Amino acid sequence: MKKIYLDNGATTPVDKNIMKAMIPYFSKIYGNAMSLHSFGEDAKRVLDGSRNKIAEFFGSDASEIIFTSGATESNNLAIKGFIKAYLRKNKQIPHIITSAFEHHCILDSIKSLEREKIIEASYVKPGKDGIISTGNILKSIKSNTVLVSIMYVNNEIGTEQPISEIGKKIKKVNPEIIFHTDATQAVNYFNCNVDHLNVDMLSMSAHKIYGPKGIGMLYVRKGVAIDRIQDGGDHEFGKRAGTQNIPGIVGLAAALSEIKKEKTKVKNNEIINLRNYLIDGILKEIPGTILNGSKKLRSPNNANFIFSNVEGESLILLLNKEGIAASTGSACSSGTLEPSHVLLSIGLPPEKAHGSLRLTLGRHTTKKEIEISIRKIRKSVSALRKISGDVLTEYYKDNKKRK
Amino acid sequence: MKKIYLDNGATTPVDKNIMKAMIPYFSKIYGNAMSLHSFGEDAKRVLDGSRNKIAEFFGSDASEIIFTSGATESNNLAIKGFIKAYLRKNKQIPHIITSAFEHHCILDSIKSLEREKIIEASYVKPGKDGIISTGNILKSIKSNTVLVSIMYVNNEIGTEQPISEIGKKIKKVNPEIIFHTDATQAVNYFNCNVDHLNVDMLSMSAHKIYGPKGIGMLYVRKGVAIDRIQDGGDHEFGKRAGTQNIPGIVGLAAALSEIKKEKTKVKNNEIINLRNYLIDGILKEIPGTILNGSKKLRSPNNANFIFSNVEGESLILLLNKEGIAASTGSACSSGTLEPSHVLLSIGLPPEKAHGSLRLTLGRHTTKKEIEISIRKIRKSVSALRKISGDVLTEYYKDNKKRK
Repeated sequence: MKKIYLDNGATTPVDKNIMKAMIPYFSKIYGNAMSLHSFGEDAKRVLDGSRNKIAEFFGSDASEIIFTSGATESNNLAIKGFIKAYLRKNKQIPHIITSAFEHHCILDSIKSLEREKIIEASYVKPGKDGIISTGNILKSIKSNTVLVSIMYVNNEIGTEQPISEIGKKIKKVNPEIIFHTDATQAVNYFNCNVDHLNVDMLSMSAHKIYGPKGIGMLYVRKGVAIDRIQDGGDHEFGKRAGTQNIPGIVGLAAALSEIKKEKTKVKNNEIINLRNYLIDGILKEIPGTILNGSKKLRSPNNANFIFSNVEGESLILLLNKEGIAASTGSACSSGTLEPSHVLLSIGLPPEKAHGSLRLTLGRHTTKKEIEISIRKIRKSVSALRKISGDVLTEYYKDNKKRK
Repeated sequence: MKKIYLDNGATTPVDKNIMKAMIPYFSKIYGNAMSLHSFGEDAKRVLDGSRNKIAEFFGSDASEIIFTSGATESNNLAIKGFIKAYLRKNKQIPHIITSAFEHHCILDSIKSLEREKIIEASYVKPGKDGIISTGNILKSIKSNTVLVSIMYVNNEIGTEQPISEIGKKIKKVNPEIIFHTDATQAVNYFNCNVDHLNVDMLSMSAHKIYGPKGIGMLYVRKGVAIDRIQDGGDHEFGKRAGTQNIPGIVGLAAALSEIKKEKTKVKNNEIINLRNYLIDGILKEIPGTILNGSKKLRSPNNANFIFSNVEGESLILLLNKEGIAASTGSACSSGTLEPSHVLLSIGLPPEKAHGSLRLTLGRHTTKKEIEISIRKIRKSVSALRKISGDVLTEYYKDNKKRK
């Protein structure tokens, strides 16, 4: 049985071209970029070249790109590094605005600062469609608001947030407020030019865009002060200590080049068509199904469903037996018994917030795979509903008719 | 001209076998180890297997191994994570003992906590031979001492510290004191069994032992509470958030296997012989030369010299033109104009602490390379002394005789 991977939101395989680009930097050009000799110079040249390419992708200056070990570290650095620098210069308790459905690495970073009692925070709820209203952000601004952090694309339900608009409008209220976005799930499909987005900081990682694990980046606009949170050597303009991971950085640059190479609109339309075929198929074939989040304002590759009377984790395990790799939400939270904070934030009751199925398509997903998946998801949902005993009469009737 | 790499203390090329071990985990077995499906299970199996192998190397339990992005992060986590957990439960200001010549990632982590006024710290000076006296550590213990952090092998002058003895004796004074060692420069050559060393925490990274950059590890003994400093998902037993870098972790495990494979004593003797040939040659051929640090208690691969009337950075650049890659000290501090804190700590005056040459041999270093290096170092030192104009008369006489 050929397996079908529909969990590209969790991680992606490293693309052949990207791997090829990385290989020489493990064993041939292996110097430490901080070393003063030719081995170091060769590494430095590659580091600088990669940084330039990456800066170009985001429409920024190379000096605004800080390499990290991934999006989790980037988000920690954006939040904690900014607050640390702020508190070094100011005595007022700063206020942060974020959304209630950010990734845990944002929420937990902010909550850890709250526990230390060195900040205040507001958590803006998205609407039922999974979209944050700019108005609600503006309403949350206080005199001591210094930082707003809103994700570009939600990692569970895939909804696209109006980052450019939020950025523009908060600056109108107070140009001193710094605006950060976690763009981890957006880079594959959306415009990530930092000026277009009106952001001061942007986080992302390579392994969600067919690059390697263990490497990410934080864009920090010139003039925005952040303190490093990882102390040590003077790497990364003094903003992040630790020997630079040159093969990883080359892989990140190559991954962004691949995205740029493809004609974005054509590619996005292809995957949107596939994804809509999946959504329409599931909604049509399986009664008692809800699509979570706006259908229009969502990532081209994301579908997220709730099936009544079906527990999400059981469905994942059954689908796994059928050769389909899917998830209930964030891989980072899998294994926990908590209901999804994302689904709770869009107004689902806790019993339903346990029950979602996230399918995230990728560069390699085919129409045939989608067809097989629809069939197998229908079969699995049906089997679980039978077991649960708590089955919709309507559904049974419908199912018998089909047989 | 074939280049000669004598900067293995800065970084090492990835070994062929290690690269081979890593390759399948970039594009073939690429799942997120937190995912519940077969792709995730495959990744989790590899993660667990690697963790077991690594634990075995250090004589620890797998649950005591926390993967990080490298030694810098490991050291930050050991110091800050431990203090964070301590302060969550205790109101007393804790006291940390470290040495004055630790790597910057230890010193700066401790100094950042000092700036926050949440700890006190003592910096024990090594002797002129670059060895920390256990007695001096014991003398520094106070009633509020909670943590001692001493590096196993100094990264600049290569001196080996009596870690096992320090661990044993501080526990006798107060068994509650936690003992951490930064073993980054030791893993290649020294016994790193955590019970032998009497340590509670141990840091290291892969790229100093022929593994990849961007991956490291912190051993934390069962029962020692540390809080994570990178917030987010529940990876690494809740001690370090962020998608696990499986290829990197496989590379780390493979790098340790390679070290274990070699008959350590034979290998160490081989490299010690080469290194002594280098030291003896330099001391004999170049008057006005001092070897920094004990000759006996030092890493098999390290030689560190001061040449009178020679500025270190100029020597590095001249040697680079001659095809020899060397360093003045830590690559992490290169480019800074500060004198080496390591050389200052062993009693050298600031003008001399600018002038050192670190040569770190590796697995691939040959006797022929050492012979060429001695000749070229002599030539370069001589050239610089001529330029400096500030030349020892004795040296000139000697040099003329030779011609």
